[in-house]
Amino acid sequence: MVVVMAADATDEDVARVVAKVEEAGGQAFVSQGVLRTIIGLVGDIDGFHSLNLRAMPGVAAVHRISDPYKLVSRQHHPERSTVWVGRSGAQVPIGPRTFTLIAGPCAVESPEQTLEAATMAKAAGATLLRGGAFKPRTSPYAFQGLGARGLEILAAVGEATGLPIVTEVADARDVSAVAEQADMLQVGARNMANYGLLQAVGECGKPVLLKRAMTATVEEWLMAAEYVAQRGNLDIVLCERGIRTFEPTTRNTLDISAVPVVQAASHLPVITDPSHSSGRKDLVVPLARASIAVGADGLIVDVHPDPEVALCDGPQALDRSELRALAQAVRQLPPLVGRRPASASSPH
Amino acid sequence: MVVVMAADATDEDVARVVAKVEEAGGQAFVSQGVLRTIIGLVGDIDGFHSLNLRAMPGVAAVHRISDPYKLVSRQHHPERSTVWVGRSGAQVPIGPRTFTLIAGPCAVESPEQTLEAATMAKAAGATLLRGGAFKPRTSPYAFQGLGARGLEILAAVGEATGLPIVTEVADARDVSAVAEQADMLQVGARNMANYGLLQAVGECGKPVLLKRAMTATVEEWLMAAEYVAQRGNLDIVLCERGIRTFEPTTRNTLDISAVPVVQAASHLPVITDPSHSSGRKDLVVPLARASIAVGADGLIVDVHPDPEVALCDGPQALDRSELRALAQAVRQLPPLVGRRPASASSPH
Amino acid sequence: MVVVMAADATDEDVARVVAKVEEAGGQAFVSQGVLRTIIGLVGDIDGFHSLNLRAMPGVAAVHRISDPYKLVSRQHHPERSTVWVGRSGAQVPIGPRTFTLIAGPCAVESPEQTLEAATMAKAAGATLLRGGAFKPRTSPYAFQGLGARGLEILAAVGEATGLPIVTEVADARDVSAVAEQADMLQVGARNMANYGLLQAVGECGKPVLLKRAMTATVEEWLMAAEYVAQRGNLDIVLCERGIRTFEPTTRNTLDISAVPVVQAASHLPVITDPSHSSGRKDLVVPLARASIAVGADGLIVDVHPDPEVALCDGPQALDRSELRALAQAVRQLPPLVGRRPASASSPH
Amino acid sequence: MVVVMAADATDEDVARVVAKVEEAGGQAFVSQGVLRTIIGLVGDIDGFHSLNLRAMPGVAAVHRISDPYKLVSRQHHPERSTVWVGRSGAQVPIGPRTFTLIAGPCAVESPEQTLEAATMAKAAGATLLRGGAFKPRTSPYAFQGLGARGLEILAAVGEATGLPIVTEVADARDVSAVAEQADMLQVGARNMANYGLLQAVGECGKPVLLKRAMTATVEEWLMAAEYVAQRGNLDIVLCERGIRTFEPTTRNTLDISAVPVVQAASHLPVITDPSHSSGRKDLVVPLARASIAVGADGLIVDVHPDPEVALCDGPQALDRSELRALAQAVRQLPPLVGRRPASASSPH
Repeated sequence: MVVVMAADATDEDVARVVAKVEEAGGQAFVSQGVLRTIIGLVGDIDGFHSLNLRAMPGVAAVHRISDPYKLVSRQHHPERSTVWVGRSGAQVPIGPRTFTLIAGPCAVESPEQTLEAATMAKAAGATLLRGGAFKPRTSPYAFQGLGARGLEILAAVGEATGLPIVTEVADARDVSAVAEQADMLQVGARNMANYGLLQAVGECGKPVLLKRAMTATVEEWLMAAEYVAQRGNLDIVLCERGIRTFEPTTRNTLDISAVPVVQAASHLPVITDPSHSSGRKDLVVPLARASIAVGADGLIVDVHPDPEVALCDGPQALDRSELRALAQAVRQLPPLVGRRPASASSPH
Repeated sequence: MVVVMAADATDEDVARVVAKVEEAGGQAFVSQGVLRTIIGLVGDIDGFHSLNLRAMPGVAAVHRISDPYKLVSRQHHPERSTVWVGRSGAQVPIGPRTFTLIAGPCAVESPEQTLEAATMAKAAGATLLRGGAFKPRTSPYAFQGLGARGLEILAAVGEATGLPIVTEVADARDVSAVAEQADMLQVGARNMANYGLLQAVGECGKPVLLKRAMTATVEEWLMAAEYVAQRGNLDIVLCERGIRTFEPTTRNTLDISAVPVVQAASHLPVITDPSHSSGRKDLVVPLARASIAVGADGLIVDVHPDPEVALCDGPQALDRSELRALAQAVRQLPPLVGRRPASASSPH
Repeated sequence: MVVVMAADATDEDVARVVAKVEEAGGQAFVSQGVLRTIIGLVGDIDGFHSLNLRAMPGVAAVHRISDPYKLVSRQHHPERSTVWVGRSGAQVPIGPRTFTLIAGPCAVESPEQTLEAATMAKAAGATLLRGGAFKPRTSPYAFQGLGARGLEILAAVGEATGLPIVTEVADARDVSAVAEQADMLQVGARNMANYGLLQAVGECGKPVLLKRAMTATVEEWLMAAEYVAQRGNLDIVLCERGIRTFEPTTRNTLDISAVPVVQAASHLPVITDPSHSSGRKDLVVPLARASIAVGADGLIVDVHPDPEVALCDGPQALDRSELRALAQAVRQLPPLVGRRPASASSPH
Repeated sequence: MVVVMAADATDEDVARVVAKVEEAGGQAFVSQGVLRTIIGLVGDIDGFHSLNLRAMPGVAAVHRISDPYKLVSRQHHPERSTVWVGRSGAQVPIGPRTFTLIAGPCAVESPEQTLEAATMAKAAGATLLRGGAFKPRTSPYAFQGLGARGLEILAAVGEATGLPIVTEVADARDVSAVAEQADMLQVGARNMANYGLLQAVGECGKPVLLKRAMTATVEEWLMAAEYVAQRGNLDIVLCERGIRTFEPTTRNTLDISAVPVVQAASHLPVITDPSHSSGRKDLVVPLARASIAVGADGLIVDVHPDPEVALCDGPQALDRSELRALAQAVRQLPPLVGRRPASASSPH
């Protein structure tokens, strides 16, 4: 932590800051410049934060130097982690040596549609099945998902196809019900800062897929993961799904740089969602290719047997011919970046 | 709703869109241009939305023309609304003819600090007392508020000073407990899209202060209000508290234009929060003046008897001399924009 | 300047940084933390910048602590400046004790339209006349202004009404021609980083109105002013005209906080442009009121005798009744923030 | 073009709009909805734009439906274009069937440094040499390039290595001098809306590399290209170099989706600049891989023989080992997306 004093700060102001830091058990190194004095703090950063140094007379700014997250940081856990999803004996890895495709319908609409979408997903190389039962929507007048009934359908289809299932939970009160059926719980972009929900999934005993809020910095996203980790759950996979920018030709802007940025800062696996970031199905395959090439640990995409009648986000769901192009990319590209396609096995 | 066909759309593609709309009970007016054909839709817009026209062959784009919100829209309720806060016989209005100052500590820390802050707020012209008991924070390691104990302190201080109290609720499971004590429930910026929480406060029977998410468009903000309204609660006050932009000198950018924009689109009252938007106490009084002058229905500001030791957001809390400047602005400016300072009375 | 070393930096890495700084004549103070070492640099910051410390082994980040601008900084010139515009004996001040209204047509279209707009502007309290002759437009197919002919019209109308004139220059090659006729040269938002143009107006001998690029930080804006100042011209007025954000209801977002932020950082006067920032004439008067109340040194607004036929930006031009509301605000509000309306006089 | 009438628009308001459009030679189709009336316009869009319909009574909004660019649009030129750079007989293509690597030093500092960088670039597979002689910089105190002397060095090194050269021009007054020496003129991000410069390079007779402003929408970027094209020069290559967002871990956010978006909208080739977008050399190779995989027509990267002493942007320049990783990606990935590495030849 560095305290920058104002240009007109007095020696007394500097002395008060030093005294306050030392009182809290830290050390303060003063560097007196021509225009400004800066004070380097050494010791318990979180303790310093509560000292509220910014409000002291003569203080112009306080810069934090080290990262605020701990459990998810690569500094504390240098090796990159692998998260295993599914029942014992047939678990699918998401991590640094594999490439994992998660696919399925944006919303579960019926047993038939879900089974057909799952079959398409599997044929394209997917080893995890996604599907939405609880759908948070911007409009209270839009389709909100089938709820508990959707969850049952998804679980049955997962059973039938042998694919572990990933589904969103949007309310802390639903976590235990969802965790009973799902193999992985997704926290959506809108709920990334819903701390009650983060804590609940932190205690649910299942792996968590944590989407980046469309307006979150990488640091805020990792702090959200820290909330989950703090409750004892380190089986977290991060998902970049596009950030809000001024560009209107895509629904959001896929921040592809965030993949290597996160991999340098955190040991957690990170995947991308080209469907929701772009909102355009003509971009899904190109962005999927880019994601594999940049080094993502996986992908999550929307598929629908008949996008024209989809109840949710139809314009971005892949149809059969696009899925073939995706399948080809998932086969050909991972080996060029040192990965193999992920398949169900046992953690070693 | 307007459907824009692609440049290479066929007559058959156009006919299919028209047929689908008419099947759903709507009317479709075709305008054939040199380069493109556009189709104007008339009828039940929400019904059209579920037709998923964007996914049909030959469709390039679908533009919604009318606003997606209804209950909060000025189109359905042309007169601007007044929301009354407090117990019967001594309620404080927030609306088009008054100007209401809400002030108090960012976080309730102790009975003494809260009482002192409330006394300062009242002296500055505040007629509603704010104070945080449940504090959602970016870091799980930061002070999270006193919780239920904080709520009790706040209620006692409200009682002692005669000021109705406004406090944040961050979890749907806490709504009924908070609603028992508080006169107005605040939904914070981080929770603006927490739909379970919005629905819970929509049923709580108390007025709601709904902050704009720092990354929400005005339309998304009004849709969040629509979630509350849909559950039967139209006592909603909107609060602009700064949006996320690229500018780093302020914590967020106060979108002052949003005040008249919202007042033109919605009948709900709208206030601003100059403390949280700027994060700098030297900006609070200038931004408060600007907010009154632009026509806001009120202000919410942080005050703390001793900002240097505040446990939360100390750098933005006003001290006594700044409060005097604020008090002067609150007295002098509202009459120039056709308003009187709000005081407790009975709705008429 | 503060150098933050990587977590795995060696003592040798630290020693190399210290040696490089000392070689360049500076001092380096090392603060060894538990996780990281930070090094505070004292001496010639600009010299340090060219040392390229960020590229040295073991260096994680380099933070600049002091501001990069000098001539326009309040640190070097604590008193706020007044810029005088017009011919000797009848100059209009823009500065901390006055409030100056600049008004006129977005584009000069004809002598009649310009004279009529100037007369309206004057009646509303304007003491400077704006008008565009050279109009940079996003589309090469849009009206680009009357050029030299427009300049002549504007000068003649300025003469006839006694109002000094402000007009945009968009190309370094036009600067001397424009400076011959205009009393103040405007550099538009699109050209804020056109350094050849900034240097040319820095040598033109006339005051400069420097608009903020819609995507510039306050620091970049002040650096653009530094380019002008470096060529010997300190008669610079800054103009906030809205920044690009995700909010679509206004053309840009007026960053009203930038007014007090700039006034704290720089001695230069700062005004706002509510017409171009909002692009909606229903917002111009509210935003003008907010700008006066926040403490701006002036305003620039579009007026047009008949907005419906305006060749440029008609939707934001004020008509007569809106001008009356503006005139009232310009009369009533400045005294409440310690200012008097600016009128032509001699600098003292 | 679609005109949306206000909810309270009268039949007379509608009739006036229709009359104005028909007077201008267009057709107007009226769709009367329950809440609003919309009017579809057919005919000469640019003509309609100057009608200023938005300022008419009863008009709520005017939406343009077709794209505002023409010469660069794929609608008018469905086949994607190839731009050839270099002297006759040994030209390097940038287009849909090849992948072109442009590399070299950010700034030309000396003949030795430039030759060494060019040799490194060539060994990595580059067939075009970049190098900055005129460097626009945010700070007037930063290194601004060697100017004419730098241009001579670059030309000599291009001659010696057989690589055609690409260099930036930042001022319309320098265009003819630069065009004499360079094989391709770069317009930098800061100058994307410098229309005088765009028109000058439009008349220079050499291919143009047009960078996207860090705050430009895709549409504005294509409109800038339209300015160049309008002067008769269609040899334009677009370069995505990162947009400004709220994310601080990278200098800018590489908008990788813009590559397929532009390729769908325009026939011009599009490349990316992973060095300037990220500002971090650890991200350059991953982002280069992603750019090839997404389908970019080429890449431009910074190389420097000794990044630690680079006078400009050293932290992002690749050193030898990173260049080897880049060379490998440039060899292996293009064939997987149907391209071959570009080499000098003759256009067919």
